[in-house]
Amino acid sequence: MANEFELIDHCFLPLSAGLAESEIGIGDDGAVIDVPENHQMVVVTDTLVSGVHFPENCLAYDIAWKALAVNLSDLAAMGARPGVFSLALTLPNNDQAWLESFSAGLKDISQKYQIPLVGGDTTKGPLTISVTAQGWVEKGQAVLRSGASVGDVICVTNTIGDGAVGLKLALATLTESEQKLLSVEDKDFLLAALNRPQPQLAMITLLKEYASSAIDISDGLLADLSHILIMSKKKSEQELAAKVELSQIPLSVATQQYLQQSQDWSAIITGGDDYQLCFTVPQARLNIFKVEAEKQGLAVTEIGLIEVGKGIQLLNKGVEFSLQQQDGYLHF
Amino acid sequence: MANEFELIDHCFLPLSAGLAESEIGIGDDGAVIDVPENHQMVVVTDTLVSGVHFPENCLAYDIAWKALAVNLSDLAAMGARPGVFSLALTLPNNDQAWLESFSAGLKDISQKYQIPLVGGDTTKGPLTISVTAQGWVEKGQAVLRSGASVGDVICVTNTIGDGAVGLKLALATLTESEQKLLSVEDKDFLLAALNRPQPQLAMITLLKEYASSAIDISDGLLADLSHILIMSKKKSEQELAAKVELSQIPLSVATQQYLQQSQDWSAIITGGDDYQLCFTVPQARLNIFKVEAEKQGLAVTEIGLIEVGKGIQLLNKGVEFSLQQQDGYLHF
Repeated sequence: MANEFELIDHCFLPLSAGLAESEIGIGDDGAVIDVPENHQMVVVTDTLVSGVHFPENCLAYDIAWKALAVNLSDLAAMGARPGVFSLALTLPNNDQAWLESFSAGLKDISQKYQIPLVGGDTTKGPLTISVTAQGWVEKGQAVLRSGASVGDVICVTNTIGDGAVGLKLALATLTESEQKLLSVEDKDFLLAALNRPQPQLAMITLLKEYASSAIDISDGLLADLSHILIMSKKKSEQELAAKVELSQIPLSVATQQYLQQSQDWSAIITGGDDYQLCFTVPQARLNIFKVEAEKQGLAVTEIGLIEVGKGIQLLNKGVEFSLQQQDGYLHF
Repeated sequence: MANEFELIDHCFLPLSAGLAESEIGIGDDGAVIDVPENHQMVVVTDTLVSGVHFPENCLAYDIAWKALAVNLSDLAAMGARPGVFSLALTLPNNDQAWLESFSAGLKDISQKYQIPLVGGDTTKGPLTISVTAQGWVEKGQAVLRSGASVGDVICVTNTIGDGAVGLKLALATLTESEQKLLSVEDKDFLLAALNRPQPQLAMITLLKEYASSAIDISDGLLADLSHILIMSKKKSEQELAAKVELSQIPLSVATQQYLQQSQDWSAIITGGDDYQLCFTVPQARLNIFKVEAEKQGLAVTEIGLIEVGKGIQLLNKGVEFSLQQQDGYLHF
């Protein structure tokens, strides 16, 4: 059986490729990384625990993909481009096949988004994957949660709810009639949204240029939008509310099928695991922003408005709508 | 019971103090940190797992202290000064008293070494603490494992073996006669070495000026010295060996007592958990280095030499000495 050091060499050293000659990746007490001039560092950390954030039988490839993807999603929400990342991997045993699959997933996503692995720690214990990623943003250009103002338009990228409906599918908690409407393609799409989310890094230039605030949707659209309200309220010293029109929330064909059968808006807007971006754009800049986004082939949709007031008001085709559970996922 | 967000606010927000006005700590998707000019970033990660790296009844204060200390020790070995750190904390439950103690320990060490907490993730699961720290080093000045050459003198900081003997004491695996020789002060000293190691950050200026290579001793003196040999061999394209004189290895009074009774050199040089530095200094610079170290009140001791050859040769008062187990701690 390979020992820890051989295992790291074999599985993870190749992921350290792509550093400059002046940089040092895996193999010393720490990595040494060049810093771009006139930038700030953005640091993000996200942990996935087996049985909590993914089912115990989840593919190692998917676990690795998601562990890095959720961190890249945080960098995207800050307007930061990927730099390097570290991996703290706690494993119950030294399972070569599992590690091969895990490192293949990690390699694919790290190459796709050009972020080399530069270090970490492998320990023995219950399966836990913690990634810390560093990104770079031009000085003072980071996009924060706290910049939303009254009158700003609330937007999201792509479609909402697919990860949450994917989770219901993966956990086999869909009813028979909900399942029936989903085609094979729908199911594949939903599981891919759950297991291999695509961080919205293509948005960072537009966010820095046009967004007054941004957050990545991991805890659910409502919970994450409320983080924008809370943080922006602190800064603007004004109570801020959001009005969201459900019928404008962009949905995939698969999630539309689910909604049609279940009428379950709650899963879609509180389920989380979207890794799409929710952001605000000042009204005056909305048109030019939409033109730019279209030019770049980026799907963005207006779903609501920031107003004076408190909380999030939901409308469905203009009619007030209420959910029993308006909170996102709370971890305890 | 406080939820995750309240808990983070209460326990960890205060540790984010000390950032510049242009910087952002806990509370957004990521932290935004200024980067000193003409520097490189050094990134280190270390994970502690309950029942593996510390006994399940270990004080939360000590766990927190050690989790950051071992990372600061890695930064010290690279010659990097502390920047900021992130915490990935996986907890089995929301135990307020445990968290108060944990955050007190983390606060004390982060203030002592002036490194603010800027983010992280709290998840539910088996107790695991993973810290990633960023430090800064002047461009091209990082001290690597790979710079040792034939003729260099091998040195260590302070005393070796205290953490390992401390672990025997904590696990109650000392014989009665070994215990008997230890005073109350000895025991306190050994447990402090184990539970609250002091990262050797005071050494970084001297290391950058005089050391050809350095490593922090976490896996045991022999294992970590062998990492220097392996990495330096790769770079120098020459087989490198080390000759170490056991009688020169600096020992605390407590560890001397243990050794006298047990004759157990193995625990001392392979036990690990030292978080002292092992480094090499070119012969020609040794005297001036020692003068400088003394001026600064830093305890450094020569314990051997880098030679042409293979492996580590141990001598005890000039007589060849062999250990049954020359490897350090292998995690699998």
